[in-house]
Amino acid sequence: MTTYDAQQQQQPAATTVADSTGTGYPTPAWRKAYRTGSAAGSRPDLRVPYREVRLGNGRTVPLYDTSGPYTDPEYTADVRRGLPPLREGWIGQRGDTEEYHGREGRPEDDGLKHTAPRGGSAGRGGPGGGAGAGGGLANLDAVFPGRPRRPRRAREGAAVTQLGYARRGVVTAEMEFAALREGLDPELVRTEIAAGRAVLPVNVNHPEVEPMLIGSRFLVKINANIGNSAVTSSIEEEVEKMSWATRWGADTVMDLSTGRNIHTTREWILRNSPVPIGTVPLYQALEKVDGKAEDLGWDVYRDTVIEQCEQGVDYMTVHAGVLLRHVPLTARRKTGIVSRGGSIMAAWCLAHHQENFLYSNFEELCDILRAYDVTYSLGDGLRPGSIADANDEAQFAELTTLGELGRIARARDVQVMIEGPGHVPMHKIKENMDLQKEICDEAPFYTLGPLTTDVAPGYDHITSGIGAAMIAWWGTAMLCYVTPKEHLGLPDRDDVKTGVITYKIAAHAADLAKGHPGAQDWDDALSDARFEFRWEDQFNLALDPETARAFHDETLPAEPAKTAHFCSMCGPKFCSMKISHGIREEYGAALDAEAGMRAKSAEFAAAGNRVYLPLAD
Amino acid sequence: MTTYDAQQQQQPAATTVADSTGTGYPTPAWRKAYRTGSAAGSRPDLRVPYREVRLGNGRTVPLYDTSGPYTDPEYTADVRRGLPPLREGWIGQRGDTEEYHGREGRPEDDGLKHTAPRGGSAGRGGPGGGAGAGGGLANLDAVFPGRPRRPRRAREGAAVTQLGYARRGVVTAEMEFAALREGLDPELVRTEIAAGRAVLPVNVNHPEVEPMLIGSRFLVKINANIGNSAVTSSIEEEVEKMSWATRWGADTVMDLSTGRNIHTTREWILRNSPVPIGTVPLYQALEKVDGKAEDLGWDVYRDTVIEQCEQGVDYMTVHAGVLLRHVPLTARRKTGIVSRGGSIMAAWCLAHHQENFLYSNFEELCDILRAYDVTYSLGDGLRPGSIADANDEAQFAELTTLGELGRIARARDVQVMIEGPGHVPMHKIKENMDLQKEICDEAPFYTLGPLTTDVAPGYDHITSGIGAAMIAWWGTAMLCYVTPKEHLGLPDRDDVKTGVITYKIAAHAADLAKGHPGAQDWDDALSDARFEFRWEDQFNLALDPETARAFHDETLPAEPAKTAHFCSMCGPKFCSMKISHGIREEYGAALDAEAGMRAKSAEFAAAGNRVYLPLAD
Repeated sequence: MTTYDAQQQQQPAATTVADSTGTGYPTPAWRKAYRTGSAAGSRPDLRVPYREVRLGNGRTVPLYDTSGPYTDPEYTADVRRGLPPLREGWIGQRGDTEEYHGREGRPEDDGLKHTAPRGGSAGRGGPGGGAGAGGGLANLDAVFPGRPRRPRRAREGAAVTQLGYARRGVVTAEMEFAALREGLDPELVRTEIAAGRAVLPVNVNHPEVEPMLIGSRFLVKINANIGNSAVTSSIEEEVEKMSWATRWGADTVMDLSTGRNIHTTREWILRNSPVPIGTVPLYQALEKVDGKAEDLGWDVYRDTVIEQCEQGVDYMTVHAGVLLRHVPLTARRKTGIVSRGGSIMAAWCLAHHQENFLYSNFEELCDILRAYDVTYSLGDGLRPGSIADANDEAQFAELTTLGELGRIARARDVQVMIEGPGHVPMHKIKENMDLQKEICDEAPFYTLGPLTTDVAPGYDHITSGIGAAMIAWWGTAMLCYVTPKEHLGLPDRDDVKTGVITYKIAAHAADLAKGHPGAQDWDDALSDARFEFRWEDQFNLALDPETARAFHDETLPAEPAKTAHFCSMCGPKFCSMKISHGIREEYGAALDAEAGMRAKSAEFAAAGNRVYLPLAD
Repeated sequence: MTTYDAQQQQQPAATTVADSTGTGYPTPAWRKAYRTGSAAGSRPDLRVPYREVRLGNGRTVPLYDTSGPYTDPEYTADVRRGLPPLREGWIGQRGDTEEYHGREGRPEDDGLKHTAPRGGSAGRGGPGGGAGAGGGLANLDAVFPGRPRRPRRAREGAAVTQLGYARRGVVTAEMEFAALREGLDPELVRTEIAAGRAVLPVNVNHPEVEPMLIGSRFLVKINANIGNSAVTSSIEEEVEKMSWATRWGADTVMDLSTGRNIHTTREWILRNSPVPIGTVPLYQALEKVDGKAEDLGWDVYRDTVIEQCEQGVDYMTVHAGVLLRHVPLTARRKTGIVSRGGSIMAAWCLAHHQENFLYSNFEELCDILRAYDVTYSLGDGLRPGSIADANDEAQFAELTTLGELGRIARARDVQVMIEGPGHVPMHKIKENMDLQKEICDEAPFYTLGPLTTDVAPGYDHITSGIGAAMIAWWGTAMLCYVTPKEHLGLPDRDDVKTGVITYKIAAHAADLAKGHPGAQDWDDALSDARFEFRWEDQFNLALDPETARAFHDETLPAEPAKTAHFCSMCGPKFCSMKISHGIREEYGAALDAEAGMRAKSAEFAAAGNRVYLPLAD
């Protein structure tokens, strides 16, 4: 047993992030496994996790896995210590970063301007841990143990970004790890990153992260948003939601907290997160000026970005594309500006009648992000918030600015994603993708849905899942999930799961439609199990085995039904699969012979028409 | 109060199909309303229902409604009497049908071959009414009161189908009703039906139905499947599911019952259904031969079709396209034949080594359906059951046969829909639609999903909702819903609702993408409410007000929150909508002026480039 913190071994707290299966997986048929070495053979220290689904017949199906060490029974989790720093050695070996005395923490980092210092007893009074947390998350309203520690940044002038390395021809350990994870050539990974068509978001201060890729040549990724708000939720819930979301397949998590304890919440999340963490620094900056948009400015924003860079945030949404001249374009919209960041920056621009300070200080911001390898997620602050506003002048004017900013950032070796909408009817989705590719030089597109209708609050995971699948098929690299609570409330644990599963469906449907190598193997394995009435295998190969099994139990609860050669929908007499098997058994040889003859005949006919191969066909 | 059965007035049973709002609608803000007259002015007797959503500001939004008289507070429902025969006068006035002494009922009609006569006490012993039925559904395991009655059919040689009328230039009351319901010109309805591009499924023996249209020029429709099976569920549940499904928006309902009481269940459903009812007669025919596919034959099938025609079934799935020569094409499939009807017919063809008796007797079958105006739904018995099998030779060979059969049926004045898949990855969906249009002369396409991946049992309403929205955008006229229980179990009341809502989303998203006149008004009304923080209006305009309101209550339960100018997701400080309003209030005039100037400037620029209009632009 790999004990990460011997002191904590005696405590039940260690089971917090695992459930009753003992591994944190929803079924004992899922097992953590690792691919070691690397495609190039140069990294025997690489140990890339995946999920192995064990079938009843002894075979296994490997699936991409985002759940981190928590699902490894050899690993003892302890949220107070955090995850092992997987990348620490790689970062150190490169010798191009240095530790330094970081920024001093201040009470206002946690929204406690006039009260106790950060980590003191003045935390939230609200009820915590309501979302199914085990016994180990008590009293997280305290500074993360051992913090603050000395942060790391690039040595003077060094380009320590994955883009920088890729351009210099270096295949980093992170690139090899991510390539092995996707089953692709590390050189393909390097060239895609070098061209700006993919990003690998890994802050040098987030050594816990398991490297992954966002780019249209790779598997479609999904992001889950979490975050407390001024209205509700606690640190415990957010840490729990993060690990819960990654358990079900979230590839990255954005912490959109806006209430108190914003710094401390983020610290707990980062230290326990195996996936890249994104933020919107503007939210915290606004808290520091008591929520008055007009009091914002470059200094407080810059200070906040550095604070978050030092903590280890991997990518940041920056609303630098909302320009003063764009704001009037939203005046006649049905739903105005619906992005929080977009509306804050628009309010600032109008209040000062000055250009967006994120735009006018963009080059300095690039230099900061470059020092930590923080990836830009250039925010679409003017995305449409209704079907009526889709693809309008405001939206595309901002997209043009985002393209310009992307080029500036990449010129400074900073990795860049571009954020996209929003509410868009189906017939206007492809234009978004096509324009983004053209204007933004094929930088990875990262969209929120899009929602294909406005009329179904309570079901916006579905209205948006439709649009998400389509835009991902056409090239979007990462999909930001939408939960059933969108527009209505803050998602709880069940909503997070529903959002993640829905978006895994959209992403996988897109992988299939794009013909991603190996994507269909998963569908084939499940369909084989279905056709052969291997019910347990069918459940275990499902995105959500718990739900599949529970639904079957509702109609046919008895154990023998799990080996029955019919399903509960139609019963034995009407089971088409059963009849189909009967057909194969009784007439299999004859059918095959006939199918074979037809194939031969077709070949012959084809050959007859092609005695000479045509020059152009 | 329109009392349909005075005798029943004293009994609480009358509330069975209404819920606590007193109208059967999920919110008192929904009210039943009627458009009277007709577009042509020739039918002052027409009274076309719609749903009126009343907003807080006194305005109303009209929405298409499928819930029938149950949601009219002026109407007292009584499932033992059934719905009023809306079409009775229209059918009678045409004078081209006659009542006759119908087929004699037989015990085997209800699967009671060796026991008591139909309607006796030998019904199911299982628990009934578990799905939320009120007090009025007790003892439905009995023949419908007043049955059998004399059925109606065409007088010798008369073409009493809507297709027949349309071809003769007659705009029937049913066409005017449906035209008014969609807000379209009755002549457009007539020409679409005459061309075979739309169907209006209305059996002369189902006078209770409210006429509706299925065709790509009209609103996309959805079907909900219900039906008991040999394994579970009761008559009470099925009647309740029918009215429940139409409450949420099902445009038609298919009764796929396969167990006992199949005839009696259908009778109760038909007499109480305001929407067209579809069936698969093969299922009942198979019950009559004790489930032995090889014992089937034209005689028992023909007898079953007549039995169902006399009861009033509006459309029938007929698997006449599964030909003997197609069966070998499925031999190497991953999941063989997954359609129940397809597998039964394939088994029959192989057992007898004869051509499908539905194909060889197709013309006689047309003549039967023609006499009652039953619409064909030509079944895709060889639809793919997995991603691996999509768009294969077997599937498209059958589609070619369906095209041929459609032409034969229409030549005999029988209305025709074509059924479509199934499991299809996104990039192969459009080919299905394009081929169907070409091969089947643009007959309405009626698809099951399609499911865009196999890996999410328990969420197949979503995997298929994605494909359904896309194929409907491209031209599919009706979508057969898929519930979360697909592949796993029989849907209960909640699953039916989830399936219907998901498919209403897909259908409406497609209406938007097709630019259906007026479709976006609904989205605009909801988005206006959202932007103006009219929370109650937002809930009431939602597809599912109950869920939207409940989700908001979870986070902000207090009544004042329903008028709050921010949402529970972000809280007041970060509310983009609130900030956006602030921007408009403070800078509105200036923004409008600037937006106006920009517009003028754009006009000027455009004019400058177009002093002379180019010949081709």
